[in-house]
Amino acid sequence: MRIAFQGEPGTDAEAAALRFKPSADLLPRATVEAVFEAVEQGSATHGILPIENSIDGTMHRSYDRLMQHELPIVGEVELPIDHNLLAFEGTTREMLRRVYSHQLGLAQCEGFLRTLDVEIVASFDTAGSAKMIRDGQLRDTGAIASARVAEAYGLSILEGGVKNVAGNTTRFLLIGRDTTVSGANKTTVVFTVPNDAGALFKALSVFALRDIDLTKLESRPIPERPFEYLFYADLSGTREDLSCTRALMHLAEFAPLLRTLGSYPRWQEPDGV
Amino acid sequence: MRIAFQGEPGTDAEAAALRFKPSADLLPRATVEAVFEAVEQGSATHGILPIENSIDGTMHRSYDRLMQHELPIVGEVELPIDHNLLAFEGTTREMLRRVYSHQLGLAQCEGFLRTLDVEIVASFDTAGSAKMIRDGQLRDTGAIASARVAEAYGLSILEGGVKNVAGNTTRFLLIGRDTTVSGANKTTVVFTVPNDAGALFKALSVFALRDIDLTKLESRPIPERPFEYLFYADLSGTREDLSCTRALMHLAEFAPLLRTLGSYPRWQEPDGV
Repeated sequence: MRIAFQGEPGTDAEAAALRFKPSADLLPRATVEAVFEAVEQGSATHGILPIENSIDGTMHRSYDRLMQHELPIVGEVELPIDHNLLAFEGTTREMLRRVYSHQLGLAQCEGFLRTLDVEIVASFDTAGSAKMIRDGQLRDTGAIASARVAEAYGLSILEGGVKNVAGNTTRFLLIGRDTTVSGANKTTVVFTVPNDAGALFKALSVFALRDIDLTKLESRPIPERPFEYLFYADLSGTREDLSCTRALMHLAEFAPLLRTLGSYPRWQEPDGV
Repeated sequence: MRIAFQGEPGTDAEAAALRFKPSADLLPRATVEAVFEAVEQGSATHGILPIENSIDGTMHRSYDRLMQHELPIVGEVELPIDHNLLAFEGTTREMLRRVYSHQLGLAQCEGFLRTLDVEIVASFDTAGSAKMIRDGQLRDTGAIASARVAEAYGLSILEGGVKNVAGNTTRFLLIGRDTTVSGANKTTVVFTVPNDAGALFKALSVFALRDIDLTKLESRPIPERPFEYLFYADLSGTREDLSCTRALMHLAEFAPLLRTLGSYPRWQEPDGV
């Protein structure tokens, strides 16, 4: 298994890929678009992308990209996120003049960052910032990143657990080329409903009346069409199941848009944790 | 009407407040917590906070704060968002060494920002960055902000419309002290459903069977309780309507948690646009 991810080694996406498959080869790519290309062109067997954070919510852009491409979702993995203030060995909090952080880190550590009298510099890549601190032996610069990044780049943890809220988890999706995945028990679909009273209820009926459970449901306004909504739904079951196939055919009778993004195994914590 | 908002004059929240009520007095506050306090203690009649962006999705933290406080939602307003690269008059793109941007601006302009060979500095306040550029007459520094901020602080627009996606809109909620608002036709509720098959469908039935439409529905995983979900829903109708009251009583029969955050008039573009 060769998994392409966006960013430098040490980023959360890489950690998530290793959590999914500890023996996988990992291919860093500069952009998410390049992750899709790597899978499409065969240099990677799989790609990984973040889809939902428990604090910051759904990453609409990831759904947009899944819609733009034809690659199915073939797996998912959840990664607990830790944020720490890292610095070069020997640096004290008082020596810091600037702290690098990814935009998600910024949002999640806002309370802590405001207490530091430093400039907050946005970085598109947490591990890249850590690398820069190490390579430049910068003693006036910190970075908000995981303990794993600290270890990978030999930085010290000046302060641990600097986030606003506990229980911070990001869910990632794996994309591949094969539509059929063994052990699949979860299906992600995207659909629109017509702007009629009760249309969403009718849409959900096709699943409920066939005892198919929803584990995620989210409406997204379509900016260009203010009174239409796109829905994301995760269903229990796979599109190979007869009841699921029938439910989706039923939904297609009245949904202007319906797309199945993939059937895959629901994430289970290792060792039954 | 005195509306408290978070940030310096010129921010999107202020623009949204003026869109809601052009004649309102505006009270800038340093934090969202201080906005709630201003309304609770009476120095402001209303507060405003962002709830949903068409690209970045729902701001879970705003829901969290509405749940922590007792102030009801009394109105909503939608604001089209524009992002531009601003700089001090006479500055060229080549002179720029750093660009300030709010975290939402970062996410929404990522493609453009990557094309600039500058350091991207995160700011918690767009208008504050513009003020700093003007006051310091900084010619090596730019900021990502609205055209309104450029005007307020006398900066030039070096490049306009630098966002990734068109149709970028943020929806804001107004909070107040009075529960009853005239012209209300929309109600926001938060509820949990038990972890039973079909529980969500049953929850939605209480509305559908009474012809109450849902205009937003979103599940949010509860990190500490992996198999439970919190739902946000916007309903057509007000809690004064008999059918709505009955539906909510019906939902309370089996929802472990149910809270009505407010009934208020749906936003309508001025001049019927």
